[in-house]
Amino acid sequence: MEISHIEHLGIAVKSLEVAVPLWEQMLGTKCYNIEEVADQKVKTAFLKVGQTKIELLEPTSEESTIAKFIENRGEGIHHIAFATSGTAKALKDAEAMGIRLIDQAPRNGAEGLRIGFVHPKSTLGVLTELCSTQD
Amino acid sequence: MEISHIEHLGIAVKSLEVAVPLWEQMLGTKCYNIEEVADQKVKTAFLKVGQTKIELLEPTSEESTIAKFIENRGEGIHHIAFATSGTAKALKDAEAMGIRLIDQAPRNGAEGLRIGFVHPKSTLGVLTELCSTQD
Repeated sequence: MEISHIEHLGIAVKSLEVAVPLWEQMLGTKCYNIEEVADQKVKTAFLKVGQTKIELLEPTSEESTIAKFIENRGEGIHHIAFATSGTAKALKDAEAMGIRLIDQAPRNGAEGLRIGFVHPKSTLGVLTELCSTQD
Repeated sequence: MEISHIEHLGIAVKSLEVAVPLWEQMLGTKCYNIEEVADQKVKTAFLKVGQTKIELLEPTSEESTIAKFIENRGEGIHHIAFATSGTAKALKDAEAMGIRLIDQAPRNGAEGLRIGFVHPKSTLGVLTELCSTQD
């Protein structure tokens, strides 16, 4: 699997209205994009720090996995996403390493990325996303 | 506060013996340093991905905060560390923003860094470290 850097860190928050100003102040940079990902029932806000984006995730429904995460564990870091040279190949490579996949094939994520998750049980509790601008 | 990038991500693991080979295989890179931080009762292993280090943290004592974290929440992402231009100033800036500090002054971290933690209650559940090569 070819991983170049951490594309983003997903952080579960109850309210973007509260979280965005806090992170803007901490990082000294403005949120540059807010986007709804209907598929995942979240509204996301992005800030950039070096090579990596901070992706703040607010659930838009109680059915959202982010709502369930917050209910179980409270707000906090939800997942780490690695930039790969291609999501389909990265998922295939992960599977070949014995890593259990959540997504068998790439699907659409925020910011036009093609994404796929692997199961945290295979990565010692770290929910890991593999992503790329291409499949 | 001047933050340039994510210096490292701290990941709590039960065993470096298990975690290091997994992360080496996932990231396609070798662990380049293993170090004991007696102060924090952990043994740490580092791998680099882009600008950021993955810091795997194995507790060396049941009294370690990492041991308690694993007991309460299981293995997984523990903290995010931002590279700043100076830790003392970053802590002071954070306090001026109304963020509660865990460390009032910089202390020694792994890899020769001067580090300070801020309280996750002030950062919506994200345990955040500020660090720098200098105070």
